[in-house]
Amino acid sequence: MNEHVGFIGIGNLGNPMARNLLAAGFPVRVYNRTPEKAQPLAEQGASIAKSAAGVATPGGVVITVLSDDAAVEAVADDALLAALGKGGLHLSMSTILPATSERLAKSHAKHGVTYLAAPVFGRPEAAAAKKLWICTSGPDEAAKARVRPLLEAMGQGVYDFGPSVGASNVIKLAGNFMITALVEVMAEGSALAEKNRIPRAAFLDFFGQTLFNSPVFNNYAKRLIAADFDKVGFTGQLALKDMRLGLETAAASATPMPVLSLLRDRFLAAIATGEGQLDASAIALRAAEDAGLTWFPRDAK
Amino acid sequence: MNEHVGFIGIGNLGNPMARNLLAAGFPVRVYNRTPEKAQPLAEQGASIAKSAAGVATPGGVVITVLSDDAAVEAVADDALLAALGKGGLHLSMSTILPATSERLAKSHAKHGVTYLAAPVFGRPEAAAAKKLWICTSGPDEAAKARVRPLLEAMGQGVYDFGPSVGASNVIKLAGNFMITALVEVMAEGSALAEKNRIPRAAFLDFFGQTLFNSPVFNNYAKRLIAADFDKVGFTGQLALKDMRLGLETAAASATPMPVLSLLRDRFLAAIATGEGQLDASAIALRAAEDAGLTWFPRDAK
Repeated sequence: MNEHVGFIGIGNLGNPMARNLLAAGFPVRVYNRTPEKAQPLAEQGASIAKSAAGVATPGGVVITVLSDDAAVEAVADDALLAALGKGGLHLSMSTILPATSERLAKSHAKHGVTYLAAPVFGRPEAAAAKKLWICTSGPDEAAKARVRPLLEAMGQGVYDFGPSVGASNVIKLAGNFMITALVEVMAEGSALAEKNRIPRAAFLDFFGQTLFNSPVFNNYAKRLIAADFDKVGFTGQLALKDMRLGLETAAASATPMPVLSLLRDRFLAAIATGEGQLDASAIALRAAEDAGLTWFPRDAK
Repeated sequence: MNEHVGFIGIGNLGNPMARNLLAAGFPVRVYNRTPEKAQPLAEQGASIAKSAAGVATPGGVVITVLSDDAAVEAVADDALLAALGKGGLHLSMSTILPATSERLAKSHAKHGVTYLAAPVFGRPEAAAAKKLWICTSGPDEAAKARVRPLLEAMGQGVYDFGPSVGASNVIKLAGNFMITALVEVMAEGSALAEKNRIPRAAFLDFFGQTLFNSPVFNNYAKRLIAADFDKVGFTGQLALKDMRLGLETAAASATPMPVLSLLRDRFLAAIATGEGQLDASAIALRAAEDAGLTWFPRDAK
């Protein structure tokens, strides 16, 4: 009696999420622009559709985990919405603008399809370990109840932000801003420590064991200490997109965010210096290299 | 056989620290520029000296908890150092420049006095609850062992940063930078949430329960949610001093720290708008008011 699930977008994040749905016993039908990526999921029991609309069953659920607003809007076209039809539900888990969610909710309603925003926090490792935090928003409470078992198969906790459909997208953008800001701040502090002959490991270990003892601090402390930037969970290029969406949302709501502006420029510099395909935490190299420190040799970039 | 302790500076932080030494059974002799402040400690068993040098016993330990570099340098003068003399130990717990610690270590050595830097993390409430984190640095390992029982009577943990005497001062300045940066980032994120009709309590509670679940995040989340800025643990004026010392240390070591520069300007703005005597966390009002939000009515300032 498990819900049939259509799944579009099986990149670094979507792949382990789809895997966890399969493991929980949900029949999953996937579509990916690059079909070869779907093969390992097929071996785990997923069926494979030849088009995005092909994952939909009438009145069913479709999940999208895509890289940007344009990709979600391209996929959630009339063909997909007609295939879902009345009673259908689109669970939109990508990091996109709240304004895009609002626009999509309207286009979906024309086909009788419910649009539910449900962006996630967590890197691919967290997705694989079912440790995602999932934020939801939208006016349809029945839809939230319906997808609850799906969300629980993919994450460790679900937080609802009420009826305004873009609210969870705002939370996601603000959260990515705070996480990235923490990395910048850890990097500036570490650079100050090292320029004063204190190893960044001693600096970050102390705060990670005391005042800043939190999952996000300690995850990034490990990355910064090991200069572990070429094991890529999430690229600088994608992080730049998130900063851009954050600034766009800030502009639309007239919210000056000086640290966010600074972070955007950090990622532009990361791209200019050939670090755009490193992990997003490589933003830490900007503060370090500005201070004349070499944490990650240039020929490794 | 408990060590006699001289204690200079019983302000918001020093007062509970001296109290905890008394409670742990150490004979404490205090001096404060404003003598009335010492009276409650006298009732708890402290003796009171009429001058800074008067707290010292030959070869004994003197603790200073003062508001800035100038105050520490003024107190640790020839009279105090002569009174301490050979075998004496100055445990310097204020937030000051590493360069000041280096200078003081030299002047102390001339009198045979050991200078040990031991700045603390924690607000007055934490000091009262014996929950301070204490960082030490200096070349004299015997001195560190000697003061260990004192430090354990005042804090929940002691971390040593090695022989370079100013190292713990660097850690303290970098830490205050990171804490203040977190407040700024929480405020910018909260402003974005509220401008998009999400209450900052919902925003901060979510992150405080998930990714950012740490003592420092949740302490400041409470302050920001309640707009609890007139219960002052530590003023904006004092925080500005710490940002200034951080920038001075950054300049001396050629470490560009753009977020720290931004925070300095935030505190200048706080002072310009009449918030300098509010709690330092009122820096959050700058991001909020820039976004047109009123978290704390102007007539309450």
